[in-house]
Amino acid sequence: MPLTPQRTIDDLKELRGLTGDEQGAQRVAFTDTWLKARAFLREKLGALPVTQHMDAAGNWWATLPGASDRVLVIGGHLDSVPNGGWLDGCLNVLAGVEVLRRVNEQYAGKPPVTIKLVDWADEEGARFGRSLYGSSAAGGNIDITEMQKLKDRDGVSLEDALKHVGVTLSDAPQARSELENAAAYLELHIEQGPVLEGLGLPLGAVLGTVGVERHTVTFHGQAAHSGSTPMNVRKDAFRAAGQLSQEIYTIAERHSGVCTIGSCKTLPGIVTSVVETCEITLDQRHLDAGKLAAMWQDAQDAARKFADEGGCTVTFGDLWHIEPIPFHPELIDAAEASVREVSGTAHRLPSGPLHDAAEVARSGVPTVMLFVQSLRGISHNRIEDTLEEHLALSVQALDRLTDRTIAWMQAQPGA
Amino acid sequence: MPLTPQRTIDDLKELRGLTGDEQGAQRVAFTDTWLKARAFLREKLGALPVTQHMDAAGNWWATLPGASDRVLVIGGHLDSVPNGGWLDGCLNVLAGVEVLRRVNEQYAGKPPVTIKLVDWADEEGARFGRSLYGSSAAGGNIDITEMQKLKDRDGVSLEDALKHVGVTLSDAPQARSELENAAAYLELHIEQGPVLEGLGLPLGAVLGTVGVERHTVTFHGQAAHSGSTPMNVRKDAFRAAGQLSQEIYTIAERHSGVCTIGSCKTLPGIVTSVVETCEITLDQRHLDAGKLAAMWQDAQDAARKFADEGGCTVTFGDLWHIEPIPFHPELIDAAEASVREVSGTAHRLPSGPLHDAAEVARSGVPTVMLFVQSLRGISHNRIEDTLEEHLALSVQALDRLTDRTIAWMQAQPGA
Repeated sequence: MPLTPQRTIDDLKELRGLTGDEQGAQRVAFTDTWLKARAFLREKLGALPVTQHMDAAGNWWATLPGASDRVLVIGGHLDSVPNGGWLDGCLNVLAGVEVLRRVNEQYAGKPPVTIKLVDWADEEGARFGRSLYGSSAAGGNIDITEMQKLKDRDGVSLEDALKHVGVTLSDAPQARSELENAAAYLELHIEQGPVLEGLGLPLGAVLGTVGVERHTVTFHGQAAHSGSTPMNVRKDAFRAAGQLSQEIYTIAERHSGVCTIGSCKTLPGIVTSVVETCEITLDQRHLDAGKLAAMWQDAQDAARKFADEGGCTVTFGDLWHIEPIPFHPELIDAAEASVREVSGTAHRLPSGPLHDAAEVARSGVPTVMLFVQSLRGISHNRIEDTLEEHLALSVQALDRLTDRTIAWMQAQPGA
Repeated sequence: MPLTPQRTIDDLKELRGLTGDEQGAQRVAFTDTWLKARAFLREKLGALPVTQHMDAAGNWWATLPGASDRVLVIGGHLDSVPNGGWLDGCLNVLAGVEVLRRVNEQYAGKPPVTIKLVDWADEEGARFGRSLYGSSAAGGNIDITEMQKLKDRDGVSLEDALKHVGVTLSDAPQARSELENAAAYLELHIEQGPVLEGLGLPLGAVLGTVGVERHTVTFHGQAAHSGSTPMNVRKDAFRAAGQLSQEIYTIAERHSGVCTIGSCKTLPGIVTSVVETCEITLDQRHLDAGKLAAMWQDAQDAARKFADEGGCTVTFGDLWHIEPIPFHPELIDAAEASVREVSGTAHRLPSGPLHDAAEVARSGVPTVMLFVQSLRGISHNRIEDTLEEHLALSVQALDRLTDRTIAWMQAQPGA
């Protein structure tokens, strides 16, 4: 039986029935529902001549040994956010299962290179606030001491949650060995944004994940009575923040990046007082490290100017930072060719969200991703959706990309 | 002994020593510290030939009977916010004590009209969120059913707190009888704003308390991923709120009123999402009812425009409303003349904050207030302060105003 994308769509619906409810997907990592999703995957893979195992970090691996022990890895994640969508993460894994079926059949159980399918553990970080857990362990980018401090909102530690699924947190760095012979990494994902839909395209080749500068910006003014304080003597911290809320659109446009103020807190935060302290979060993203730095500089300059003009001061706090992670140029070419082959057109775009592929790429494994259109750009929500014809095209594109990547691996020096 | 303003300053310092700590004044209504302040007042008044009693709502009255049973009331409040200032409310009461001393001496215990000094209960509303409790009970503007629902943050009801000081809440409306023969009401207060300091003036005659329109303004946009959502498709509720944060300055200037956004809440309020819902509070104040209504209309129009422009919608909620309460024109003239007599200059200004005087005025008693300069305009804070020379002038001005008001009362028809 040749590649049958409908099987992936059927598998996705079956998984949704098993692990979702009327609020959406409930496959939060390390919960019993997530274990149910894993059991489902194990069963689907059981029909293939693959070996399966869980690594030291809790990632699930299926290995189809090939003529060479150089490994092509296809990855995704079954875990979801609470009340999540039916495609985010699962599409990748279940499309990978279908590609394994096709490769297995074509090469009669012995492909030219070894193929591994991985279900990364806790990509979302929804419960413990640390995303990309499993892939960062395998990529060698994990700080166990920090992870040992993590607790969910009920006070359960990540360490105990892992114990529940048979993983010892302190052993997680041993997952590093899983990528030892990895020569390429492929990941298909829904876009989770509106770009492809806006362009009327089903698929895109991903250039890399953007760098992120994430900061708090805190304006300090003076509390003053709302009734007795003339407008011209106010030091209104919210006004300065409000000015920055407009300016970030100018900054983003100037550098072709994105800037988001996601949260605003006001102190004393009462109806009868001018705002003394206004803390906002600023998230800025760009695929180019230099432009990302320039965006952050522009934001600081603007914040200082607005603070000065309004008799306020401003301070900045670091929340998080990650550099842009470009994918492999030749694999991007292969991804674009595969997209064009199945859909007739192609588009390259950066990924705004992070993905496990970023952790694999920065561990040194040549990596690329494919995006398939998300309806209305909505994800992390039960209304997350993609047209079935686009889902089918995405499975075909991943399949074509797999063949191109096998060929590329065989053409590498030392292969 | 003639009027001796230094006695008021000494009394204020003594009270501060008895009822304050290093965080400021702690005379929160119905607490033991507040009872201590009341005992202090009772003792000071004990040296005068006055009768004292607590009314049905918990207000404290001292009566110096006069030749006529028409009453001139001088009022203030000993209660403070937690960590409050040493002058807010107390200056009024203790300056009133000094005026009683002078009147008593001048008229040998029998002034031409009856003089009452009142210490209103719970002006601040700091503990139960309902300000002007005692004066609204005396003014006939109290809803017992609503008051019975009030609890402090420890779950103690206002009803139980009142019981602790000997008051039965359901009897509070009986305090209405206290104002039956009241022909005039005078109140001295620190300005709690920076206007007089800005003008270099010690004292002002107050025109009335401004009307207040207090609303929530809630912008509704769309949550979207901070990394994957292009700037030009965002529906950013915080951006619309930020635009309004500037526009209220234009609106306030256009109508010569004040507008304040005091609180901002963002949902989902996370660093990785465009703000879907942004709720702000808007407090607008004006002495003119028509201009107040126009300011609120302008704010709604602007909010709708910013929402439209940004792909958002906006809804409005009522928080509170009070009409402007103008003071008595002839008493304002008397107040201005008294201020000019003691300081050489005079200024008329509205009161942004509400005061017990507003409740008395709207019950129909001719009313006026005097303001004395607040350093840096700061109140409700332990650094609240006024120059001692200004405090002394304010006692003198209240004393002069008392004489003018007695004369005015005697000139009234039927007096």
